[in-house]
Amino acid sequence: MIANVTTAEDRLAQLGIRLPEAPTPFGAYVPAVLSGNLLFLSGMLATSGRTVTTVGVVGKDLDLTEARGAAYTAALNALAVARKQLGTLNRISHVVRIGVHVAATPEFTEHPKVADAASELFRDVFGDEMVSSRLVLGVASIPFGSPVELEIIFEVQP
Amino acid sequence: MIANVTTAEDRLAQLGIRLPEAPTPFGAYVPAVLSGNLLFLSGMLATSGRTVTTVGVVGKDLDLTEARGAAYTAALNALAVARKQLGTLNRISHVVRIGVHVAATPEFTEHPKVADAASELFRDVFGDEMVSSRLVLGVASIPFGSPVELEIIFEVQP
Amino acid sequence: MIANVTTAEDRLAQLGIRLPEAPTPFGAYVPAVLSGNLLFLSGMLATSGRTVTTVGVVGKDLDLTEARGAAYTAALNALAVARKQLGTLNRISHVVRIGVHVAATPEFTEHPKVADAASELFRDVFGDEMVSSRLVLGVASIPFGSPVELEIIFEVQP
Repeated sequence: MIANVTTAEDRLAQLGIRLPEAPTPFGAYVPAVLSGNLLFLSGMLATSGRTVTTVGVVGKDLDLTEARGAAYTAALNALAVARKQLGTLNRISHVVRIGVHVAATPEFTEHPKVADAASELFRDVFGDEMVSSRLVLGVASIPFGSPVELEIIFEVQP
Repeated sequence: MIANVTTAEDRLAQLGIRLPEAPTPFGAYVPAVLSGNLLFLSGMLATSGRTVTTVGVVGKDLDLTEARGAAYTAALNALAVARKQLGTLNRISHVVRIGVHVAATPEFTEHPKVADAASELFRDVFGDEMVSSRLVLGVASIPFGSPVELEIIFEVQP
Repeated sequence: MIANVTTAEDRLAQLGIRLPEAPTPFGAYVPAVLSGNLLFLSGMLATSGRTVTTVGVVGKDLDLTEARGAAYTAALNALAVARKQLGTLNRISHVVRIGVHVAATPEFTEHPKVADAASELFRDVFGDEMVSSRLVLGVASIPFGSPVELEIIFEVQP
């Protein structure tokens, strides 16, 4: 192994991040499906166990800082699901797509700043070479009142 | 053929479900595109022929039971499109991703129960081993006032 | 080369369309990611450079013609990103999926007519054989107040 190659698991440890328990489904679906080299994750919410950690609409009930916190929590859940499915985050060869859905008022315009809380975590863990494509939208509502839902596709080594 | 292997078409017949005519596009798109092993379906609405069967916003005009009926109708349309594209549902090797978009008020939180009407049908037809990943969102509005729109990716045998 | 085979770049020139500069990211993401044969584009907005060209909610601030103009602008941006990533649009072997997200009121129902402004451009450029699957939704809000955001997956020749 070459000394200057750092893995995702190494970086996570260096950042001092401990992943939560991977969230379990709230209905008739599974947390993730691997098809070919693509791992499709189910929608990741701002939850801890069975509880939503932040509830509300951004731009009305919640400000930018609270929304970013919710996006970060959902992103940690996504990493937990990916590690549980794959055994290790080191099998991820690219973050292909992140969709960041923000429950927001029609007037809200700063969705990218909310989304960056998830994107920056992924960049810190997977490195600059793996930065994803991204789709950011303001939606009317999200299950259980979560202010953020993440849609994620990872590319996985065969 | 091994006796206890049941196919999707067998299960559909056992359930007594007759699929509707596959819906035709409402614009400059096609019902589905196959790329590699992935079949991407166009958004499936609660329609019968050219008519939307249920109209309204969930949590305001429609209750949970009506919304679930709309999701079930859209899921039948998805199966009809898949069979028309592939010749038979038995070519489907996995339900990779279901996106369930519900036209809902900002206060609505029970989206997963709406989505389960589609997920449970797919589980009954494709079996427990093929349960999908899922994304559920409340959106502002859906074409023609349909309360539900499904986004589906199937994995298909080569 | 066979005389009646026309490429996407040829058609674009015949249509007299000059693509804009490819938009650069508004956060910690990249404009597109290629995984296997699939090119996932980031959400394309109605922007020119760093500026949103049209702002507002369709059905309230903007009418159908203005919304179609925004969808067309976003579609040109998508072509610009694809050409920049691939060197030439001629490497695109299929338009797999277009998601058209329209910032719209709960009462708005004509989303497909908005979406057709993007779909028709792609059909004119890539030809009838490459018409995509499509997902059209009305959302609460879109970054920077853009009335339309496009989600695009292209299939690319190896």
